[in-house]
Amino acid sequence: MKRPDPAAVAAVRAELEAKLGAGQVSADPDQLEVYGHDESDMGDFAPQLIAFARSTADVQQVFRTAFAHQVPVTPVAARSGKSGGSLPLYGGVSLSLERMNRIVSISPEDLTAVVEPGVITGALMKAAEELGLFYPPDPNSWEFCSIGGNIAENAGGPRALKYGVTRDYVLGMQWVLPTGEALRIGKRTIKGVAGYDLCGLFVGSEGTLGVATEITLQLIPRPRKVMTALVIFKDVLEAARAVSAMLASGLLPRCLELLDDVSIRAIDGRGFSFPPGAGAAVIAEVDGNHDDALLLELEQLSQIAAAHGAIDTLLAQDDAQREKLWAARRVVSTALRALKPFKISEDIAVPRSKIPEAIAGFKALGARLGLTVATYGHAGDGNLHANILFDGPHQRPQVDEALAQMMRITVELGGTITGEHGVGYAKRAFLSLEQEPGLIAFQQRLKTFIDPLGLLNPGKIFESDG
Amino acid sequence: MKRPDPAAVAAVRAELEAKLGAGQVSADPDQLEVYGHDESDMGDFAPQLIAFARSTADVQQVFRTAFAHQVPVTPVAARSGKSGGSLPLYGGVSLSLERMNRIVSISPEDLTAVVEPGVITGALMKAAEELGLFYPPDPNSWEFCSIGGNIAENAGGPRALKYGVTRDYVLGMQWVLPTGEALRIGKRTIKGVAGYDLCGLFVGSEGTLGVATEITLQLIPRPRKVMTALVIFKDVLEAARAVSAMLASGLLPRCLELLDDVSIRAIDGRGFSFPPGAGAAVIAEVDGNHDDALLLELEQLSQIAAAHGAIDTLLAQDDAQREKLWAARRVVSTALRALKPFKISEDIAVPRSKIPEAIAGFKALGARLGLTVATYGHAGDGNLHANILFDGPHQRPQVDEALAQMMRITVELGGTITGEHGVGYAKRAFLSLEQEPGLIAFQQRLKTFIDPLGLLNPGKIFESDG
Repeated sequence: MKRPDPAAVAAVRAELEAKLGAGQVSADPDQLEVYGHDESDMGDFAPQLIAFARSTADVQQVFRTAFAHQVPVTPVAARSGKSGGSLPLYGGVSLSLERMNRIVSISPEDLTAVVEPGVITGALMKAAEELGLFYPPDPNSWEFCSIGGNIAENAGGPRALKYGVTRDYVLGMQWVLPTGEALRIGKRTIKGVAGYDLCGLFVGSEGTLGVATEITLQLIPRPRKVMTALVIFKDVLEAARAVSAMLASGLLPRCLELLDDVSIRAIDGRGFSFPPGAGAAVIAEVDGNHDDALLLELEQLSQIAAAHGAIDTLLAQDDAQREKLWAARRVVSTALRALKPFKISEDIAVPRSKIPEAIAGFKALGARLGLTVATYGHAGDGNLHANILFDGPHQRPQVDEALAQMMRITVELGGTITGEHGVGYAKRAFLSLEQEPGLIAFQQRLKTFIDPLGLLNPGKIFESDG
Repeated sequence: MKRPDPAAVAAVRAELEAKLGAGQVSADPDQLEVYGHDESDMGDFAPQLIAFARSTADVQQVFRTAFAHQVPVTPVAARSGKSGGSLPLYGGVSLSLERMNRIVSISPEDLTAVVEPGVITGALMKAAEELGLFYPPDPNSWEFCSIGGNIAENAGGPRALKYGVTRDYVLGMQWVLPTGEALRIGKRTIKGVAGYDLCGLFVGSEGTLGVATEITLQLIPRPRKVMTALVIFKDVLEAARAVSAMLASGLLPRCLELLDDVSIRAIDGRGFSFPPGAGAAVIAEVDGNHDDALLLELEQLSQIAAAHGAIDTLLAQDDAQREKLWAARRVVSTALRALKPFKISEDIAVPRSKIPEAIAGFKALGARLGLTVATYGHAGDGNLHANILFDGPHQRPQVDEALAQMMRITVELGGTITGEHGVGYAKRAFLSLEQEPGLIAFQQRLKTFIDPLGLLNPGKIFESDG
């Protein structure tokens, strides 16, 4: 695909200014620059135009106008994606959903919420909490990512261990197809099986099959008690084995987060200090309605940890301590950047029994290639963020080699190349490691069935789309 | 669509006997008769041939052979469906998955199971339990329904309230498309977002988009304690309001099952006796790992019930009493048949706050049309089984009128025409009440994209397919 002719973009701009209003369209170079990157560090791909939708009709209009001029459209909201899903690889229009950011309603009686796609995930979490309700999916970026982006990527987070991922909370959506047709899919009830599960298909479709303009989400009653412990280990393999044992014990914590030695070093002292000798840590969090039960569960987890070589278990004494711990966990990704000038973050998942093997394999790989590898993440469900830290472009050949080997190790262990960030642009070259040619070809035919012109978010997920 | 020419079926039979083995194909009239009906009471639609698959390759062979001769194929396993999904409306081949009934493996470390589609749901539940694990989806028919059927219909059950439905436990599948192509879709890990979520699309596709020949399921640790209480009310509206209040209280029982006066009358004395004055009942079940916590939760539920007019709360004292209670609940559907010669069972779902309104509406409808209406079901998630009992075909006009009105009431309350049984053949005439023409048309185009010949389970879900 080629970058569209400026004349075609100018025509789209004129039409959209007329139909959406001049303030809803931007071709300001500085702003275009901003929309050219996200949290994937995959490079800069500035769009030629940004259109800010304020309604379903606006989204329909953007698709119809742009596609009539053969101009590609790439949906975007908070630009917090980690796989380059919102990067307009071939220019064209960035369709921003940021201004559709209303929480339309929350029903404590029905335990549902209706929201627009630009709502910040954390804003929904807080609004639900104030009503005694709970929206569990908690991507690390919840303070700034959007529900629309969570839906595009089927975002997970630490609590996925007990509560599942975004898709598990999507009941229904107003969905705009690339043809400009708007469909009300799904349901407003908790259960419902009328027709095909199009929400199932579209959640996680990475902005390539259409865009959600209104979402009905399921909420659950808010667990009234949460307790969090930090378990310290000498090394990461002991910690990983302890996590496996905890899960096999029959307990289901809501989070079991793992930090390896490099990750600990990166965040140590940033508002939180680790005891000496700490070579790995597990954050274990349980929830429910009764203090006694939770204390008992943490005690059991702590005993399992001790039996697997844990040095210490520290219980967060209050909400402030809990928040400190989680703030430290959330800052890992950023803090790792401070250790080395360059960082590539991976997002693999393996069957839970293979976690120790995967971590050991990644460490060995780093040692062999002279690269620092930091592994942390949602060990409870096998979803690990393996990070390669390096000094500069001169190490790029080793980094590429390491990435390819990591993916190979992961797939050989029965894992997936992406647990929660999506394939996007970052991993499309690796999809064929995990999926057979027939499966990839079928998905590409499905993409063409839904987006016949191939102009919605081109170049994502599949290599040959570009 | 017309019933295929016997010569075409004879040709399919000869080819399949050669390729699958003579013992895997049947044209025995008595057996054909058996495969002509299910638990929907929608009538008799005998196939012309039954093919018993023993492998993925067999399924591919059946599709290729039958479709080459323009003969339709209807997948079937336990014939326990309630919406006529496995009825071969236009004859042709019944493709039975019953003989693919192996539990391939269960991994306590990974918390996963790999099963063939003919495995009886209860057999998997028991095998998981023996290893300290838990497969939560519990359709009422778990003692005889199959995992493959559960996947086709995205089956729910009482525990869906806390644990979700079948789709929430499907990680990956070996899937055979109508073209005969076999795809390994999904993943073996708990999390994973590589490519489109085809499991999401195919689970609940009612045997119209292909067939699962191997399924990887997620299991969870088995909660070590379960407690069950029966709460007795004078009338069903009080009971329904109590259920709403229980959910709004912040508790999340694993089941909240409702029985109205007619349902109670039907099962009273069948191994279980209700106290005098009982006009409705709620079965509340909580689970967890600590007796004290569960007792406390049941106590809270009981207090809420009392505040809403409950006569009594009876706590099951041991597993035998629990099982007696659930056996009574499971027998409702059958017992209602004993009250009147004919019964039509509906499966609607409404937003939880609308449960009292829905029940009141159905009762009034029955009174107006001179029909007995019994409502019971999974009140906790708004999924109600409304049953119309009648004396004979002479009442059919009123019954049809009542059904149509029930669906209208449901949709007007923001509900769905099917909570867990599927549209199948039974409800295809009502789909347009719930879904816009554009949405139905899109789904039909999707069906044609995946099944270009339209020969896989024709006549299901969509009216004009027939």
